[in-house]
Amino acid sequence: MRNVEHIGIAVKDFSEANALYFKLLGVEPYKTEFVPAENVNTSFFKVGGTKIELLEGTTEDSAITKFVQKRGEGIHHIAFEVEDIGKEMERLRQEGFTLLSETPRKGADNKLVCFVHPKSAGGVLIELTQEIS
Amino acid sequence: MRNVEHIGIAVKDFSEANALYFKLLGVEPYKTEFVPAENVNTSFFKVGGTKIELLEGTTEDSAITKFVQKRGEGIHHIAFEVEDIGKEMERLRQEGFTLLSETPRKGADNKLVCFVHPKSAGGVLIELTQEIS
Repeated sequence: MRNVEHIGIAVKDFSEANALYFKLLGVEPYKTEFVPAENVNTSFFKVGGTKIELLEGTTEDSAITKFVQKRGEGIHHIAFEVEDIGKEMERLRQEGFTLLSETPRKGADNKLVCFVHPKSAGGVLIELTQEIS
Repeated sequence: MRNVEHIGIAVKDFSEANALYFKLLGVEPYKTEFVPAENVNTSFFKVGGTKIELLEGTTEDSAITKFVQKRGEGIHHIAFEVEDIGKEMERLRQEGFTLLSETPRKGADNKLVCFVHPKSAGGVLIELTQEIS
């Protein structure tokens, strides 16, 4: 785990949330992106060496929509940057963590990603992320 | 907001959680500290330029104990490092955020801290933190 690449925050209303985080952080999002595979709108704010990612579900069955319905808006996951996602997935499997996919998937922001089940990680949804070179 | 100084994670059992995060992150906590004012045990793991802080409530009325009872273990807050906490508190007040204290308080890890109410910040408990020089 090299760095906290970003912190993902689930929001209800994308434009309201972008305005709120602009006020809070004092910077505009440097990027917004729709991720069709997850049915989410995303926006990214740089804060020092890490990022805040806002996530809005765009369909009723999006994981983000369900999260917000169940728990309200708030912190959704922590993403750690790794050098070799396959190797790190294997290491975590060996350590007893449950991964949510067998192989890495294509995520937002030009990344390969894999999630670790919160039940195996103290209630925290962990994302592993590796830049696609 | 200069950086994500740390991410605070509420845990049920301090020694179990420290062992779990050692496995996850591949590093030992560089520090553990009891914070009497908050009735919490804390431990800190360095991950690149930021930190993971584990928090265990030590009394029934500790905010962390209550959080875990209500929501389960999981991410509790995001702490942003600021240069001048008084100035940043004033800026956020002007922007309409609700602060949880009138003046900064002494937190763990030799810091002055102030929290922003999650109701005014999209469901996220935000901490401002400034190193005591």
